[in-house]
Amino acid sequence: MNKVPFKGIIAYPVTPFDYHERVDIPLFKTQVERLVTCGSHGVAPLGSTGVLPYLNDEEKESITEATIQQVAGRVPTLVGVSNLTTDKTIYHAQFAEKAGATAVMIIPMSYWKLTDDEIVAHYDAVASKISIPIMAYNNPATSGVDMSTGLLKKLLMIPNVTMIKESSGDIQRMHILKNELGDDVAFFNGSNPLALGAFAAGAQGWCTAAPNLIPELNMSLYQAVLENDFQKAQEIFYKQVDLLRFIVDKGLPRSIKSGLNLLGFEGGELRRPLMPLAESEIAALNSILTGLHAGVEA
Amino acid sequence: MNKVPFKGIIAYPVTPFDYHERVDIPLFKTQVERLVTCGSHGVAPLGSTGVLPYLNDEEKESITEATIQQVAGRVPTLVGVSNLTTDKTIYHAQFAEKAGATAVMIIPMSYWKLTDDEIVAHYDAVASKISIPIMAYNNPATSGVDMSTGLLKKLLMIPNVTMIKESSGDIQRMHILKNELGDDVAFFNGSNPLALGAFAAGAQGWCTAAPNLIPELNMSLYQAVLENDFQKAQEIFYKQVDLLRFIVDKGLPRSIKSGLNLLGFEGGELRRPLMPLAESEIAALNSILTGLHAGVEA
Amino acid sequence: MNKVPFKGIIAYPVTPFDYHERVDIPLFKTQVERLVTCGSHGVAPLGSTGVLPYLNDEEKESITEATIQQVAGRVPTLVGVSNLTTDKTIYHAQFAEKAGATAVMIIPMSYWKLTDDEIVAHYDAVASKISIPIMAYNNPATSGVDMSTGLLKKLLMIPNVTMIKESSGDIQRMHILKNELGDDVAFFNGSNPLALGAFAAGAQGWCTAAPNLIPELNMSLYQAVLENDFQKAQEIFYKQVDLLRFIVDKGLPRSIKSGLNLLGFEGGELRRPLMPLAESEIAALNSILTGLHAGVEA
Amino acid sequence: MNKVPFKGIIAYPVTPFDYHERVDIPLFKTQVERLVTCGSHGVAPLGSTGVLPYLNDEEKESITEATIQQVAGRVPTLVGVSNLTTDKTIYHAQFAEKAGATAVMIIPMSYWKLTDDEIVAHYDAVASKISIPIMAYNNPATSGVDMSTGLLKKLLMIPNVTMIKESSGDIQRMHILKNELGDDVAFFNGSNPLALGAFAAGAQGWCTAAPNLIPELNMSLYQAVLENDFQKAQEIFYKQVDLLRFIVDKGLPRSIKSGLNLLGFEGGELRRPLMPLAESEIAALNSILTGLHAGVEA
Repeated sequence: MNKVPFKGIIAYPVTPFDYHERVDIPLFKTQVERLVTCGSHGVAPLGSTGVLPYLNDEEKESITEATIQQVAGRVPTLVGVSNLTTDKTIYHAQFAEKAGATAVMIIPMSYWKLTDDEIVAHYDAVASKISIPIMAYNNPATSGVDMSTGLLKKLLMIPNVTMIKESSGDIQRMHILKNELGDDVAFFNGSNPLALGAFAAGAQGWCTAAPNLIPELNMSLYQAVLENDFQKAQEIFYKQVDLLRFIVDKGLPRSIKSGLNLLGFEGGELRRPLMPLAESEIAALNSILTGLHAGVEA
Repeated sequence: MNKVPFKGIIAYPVTPFDYHERVDIPLFKTQVERLVTCGSHGVAPLGSTGVLPYLNDEEKESITEATIQQVAGRVPTLVGVSNLTTDKTIYHAQFAEKAGATAVMIIPMSYWKLTDDEIVAHYDAVASKISIPIMAYNNPATSGVDMSTGLLKKLLMIPNVTMIKESSGDIQRMHILKNELGDDVAFFNGSNPLALGAFAAGAQGWCTAAPNLIPELNMSLYQAVLENDFQKAQEIFYKQVDLLRFIVDKGLPRSIKSGLNLLGFEGGELRRPLMPLAESEIAALNSILTGLHAGVEA
Repeated sequence: MNKVPFKGIIAYPVTPFDYHERVDIPLFKTQVERLVTCGSHGVAPLGSTGVLPYLNDEEKESITEATIQQVAGRVPTLVGVSNLTTDKTIYHAQFAEKAGATAVMIIPMSYWKLTDDEIVAHYDAVASKISIPIMAYNNPATSGVDMSTGLLKKLLMIPNVTMIKESSGDIQRMHILKNELGDDVAFFNGSNPLALGAFAAGAQGWCTAAPNLIPELNMSLYQAVLENDFQKAQEIFYKQVDLLRFIVDKGLPRSIKSGLNLLGFEGGELRRPLMPLAESEIAALNSILTGLHAGVEA
Repeated sequence: MNKVPFKGIIAYPVTPFDYHERVDIPLFKTQVERLVTCGSHGVAPLGSTGVLPYLNDEEKESITEATIQQVAGRVPTLVGVSNLTTDKTIYHAQFAEKAGATAVMIIPMSYWKLTDDEIVAHYDAVASKISIPIMAYNNPATSGVDMSTGLLKKLLMIPNVTMIKESSGDIQRMHILKNELGDDVAFFNGSNPLALGAFAAGAQGWCTAAPNLIPELNMSLYQAVLENDFQKAQEIFYKQVDLLRFIVDKGLPRSIKSGLNLLGFEGGELRRPLMPLAESEIAALNSILTGLHAGVEA
């Protein structure tokens, strides 16, 4: 087992629907293909961007299989298998492993705020049933639970919990993670507008839906970091920060789909209650994208 | 259609599981029976207390049917049918209506923060498919969305959205609701520790899991309110407030099940990741319950 | 020493300035006189309403003396003596005692967040230098420190700290105070929009600037509470809640002064940076006041 | 007027007291001298670190004069002149200018939450009375007001408001400032634990009390930034981040004074209610400092 099979830009596809709110697998494969060919260092289906919680079991399985088929080993895959119950999480983690996923990502979804003991037991139960690595994902805004550094430490003692994705939006968390967990802990940034600060803090990668819209800017930011070029990284980051903030503020599925349409690609439909961006929001997004692509060409 | 078929104490049963994490319908019926015979003015299965989001479709249907059979029309029933997607919410709302529910309760569950337009469209879509009343439920802590008074006003313009359950924990919301929506808007309190303040503010009822443990204190608080006896209401409220705060702090399913066991009833098991209260917590709960029941007898 | 010399409505005067931003003592006395003659059960100068922190030492002393002269023993006086440093707090507390104040109010002002030990030592140092009672005031929004129930317990062990004013805006604090500190702890409500809930919770009094504008409604709410008439209290409360919320939202000094002017009294000027309400805000306040006074007469 | 006379590390001295809580000017000068000789690029007395709000007018004036005498033009000086009232802020700003300060720093202190109009009028009134540059300081935790980017834009239209110090702790604010205000806006970081991220985001300098304890680490971080060496900056930052977090968590005056004592310098006393760190806190600080200085030598 490669304990940390990811680095760089891990791209998150959306899950497109057709007009009857059915998952559109062919369109999904097209979108995944774009993410691979544009240079992403990994592909991560069934994340928040992929509206994981709005899908039923069969749909999740189709998306998992479609991803692995389409990626075809060109880059590693990170499949989201989070579920409110432990049993269902185990079920989907095992499905992903069998289907050939490189690793799985798990956020401790909660309706009732979970205790630390419940969270450890949850990860432990899932980890004991699979042999591929697990990325533990902290995002209090969507999970309702903010995992402390102390709790993350405990999770990292489970042998195949080897990576952490931090999306609390607080850069200090990464400092504490790195200082308390040692240099070899692999943490990934999941907060788009913090991309620059997170790389400065030592993040090994950036989990992001932005490559659906601006892959060159995302890849070149990472390239500048690899080249240890602070000023270039800053310059590239400031070109994209308005877009990064927009897609987070308006919600990733809605804004990525609108953005794809604006760029001339097919974005697909949403599943209710999610609705398309309003006209004024689409105009704002268009203005940002137009500015960016002009800037990139220049 | 009786637009507001509830008043007083609306009791929330837990959903008990057996040792294999399967829903235990016979035990559930026993627990519902206790809630009816102790004098509750309504029964509300599949709420947060009933761990709605942890159940699959078949389980939700069994619980709905079991409730309606057991209650057998003695009091009105309020069935939780909330779901992340609009289609599934419609599905369960229709099921509940066919099964004979008096009304349904809907909270705008969200993973991606919903816009006001998305929420209105969600309720509208469900409401148009059923003819029983809907209680709109605001609880930002569990839904991730805090519905403003302005939004609630819009929801109340949908003909069968006739009731509001407020659980934001801010008593001022009820003042604004009553002042802006007029005297005839029926709002219910869903925040246990605010029970007294909410009745003072004019709440028509109290949605609570507490009757599983202390039905006499819950019913007599409401009785004092009906009798316009401020001082008696205050005295009765202060007897129960520690318990009310405990069950909220520790989570309703976990604490109600432990409390049932402590009182000599069968509480049933939980579904993972939820785990029983720790020993020290059970001891604290026991101490509160012992004090209360001594106090009630005295 | 009467340990708890207050009950009912404790009225807070503003500190009026002239056009040169000098304190206007004659106008202040006129305003205090109105508060006494309208039936307030106590008068409390140099609170937040009285812009205590914007005044220099001499101005505070003049206001203290003017209050005590004007009230002339008709009701008890509660003088604000809070200061960032312990030495200055002692200084003003001693001045108030010598001038004849019935009691002093102290909030733990902080620039640097104080520890519990620092707060206890602060109250202890002041209390040891005076022999009149102290009301400890919790208002995290203005002091920057939220005193826990545990800390308030410690403060109440200091012999002349005998009263608590709670303005955190969370009604549950009052429940905890009463349940943990026993029936004889005297707590006062300082959050205007919570007036009804606080009386329901057992508050002994209401610290409020509202009697500057709507004394009859404030007094009659307390009267209904004394008469144990829940329904009447609710009805009277709902008449005034919009005004209570307005004066809190817009700031007490600014809104009370505008309100006085609207009612035909002289409100006085503000000291910069505080500026008068905007025209649209004054119109909104006028609309609320007009509605109220129509309602009162009817 | 040099509109932006600062860059790099702007060092904040504490205000030391003697055993009678009197300001100790000779000790203050010794501490300022250390900050200059260790290579700081500016000195900023009467900030939060210097317990500005706990000092009376005469004390502020002595500190201002002592700083300017001791620094003697070797580096620029930035004098804190913030006050709750506009008149007093003008008074101290004029005093600082006459005494020879390079610039003044102003935070919109508030007791009553100020409106945007009040804040603009406040800065405008002060700015019109002096001719040296003003650094507008945003720190909601101490001022009680969070100035939006829109408001900061308005302040920057006042001719001598030329610099912004951002201490909200949210790195995204700096992104927005830079993107909305243009490349030539000079913003400074005031949040110690964000030092690395802020330089990555383009901050022109770092306002910090840390040079009292670890000047070499602070200066060398800035040096690495100037050299465009990402990896070196990260390495140097991680050496100091635990100390940076400690001094913020425990309060700058208390922790800097204890740290000075631990390093063998004289820290001076505090003014009540501020009290020295507890023994266990001093031990923790000692452990951090010992580790750091070992690390620096190695």
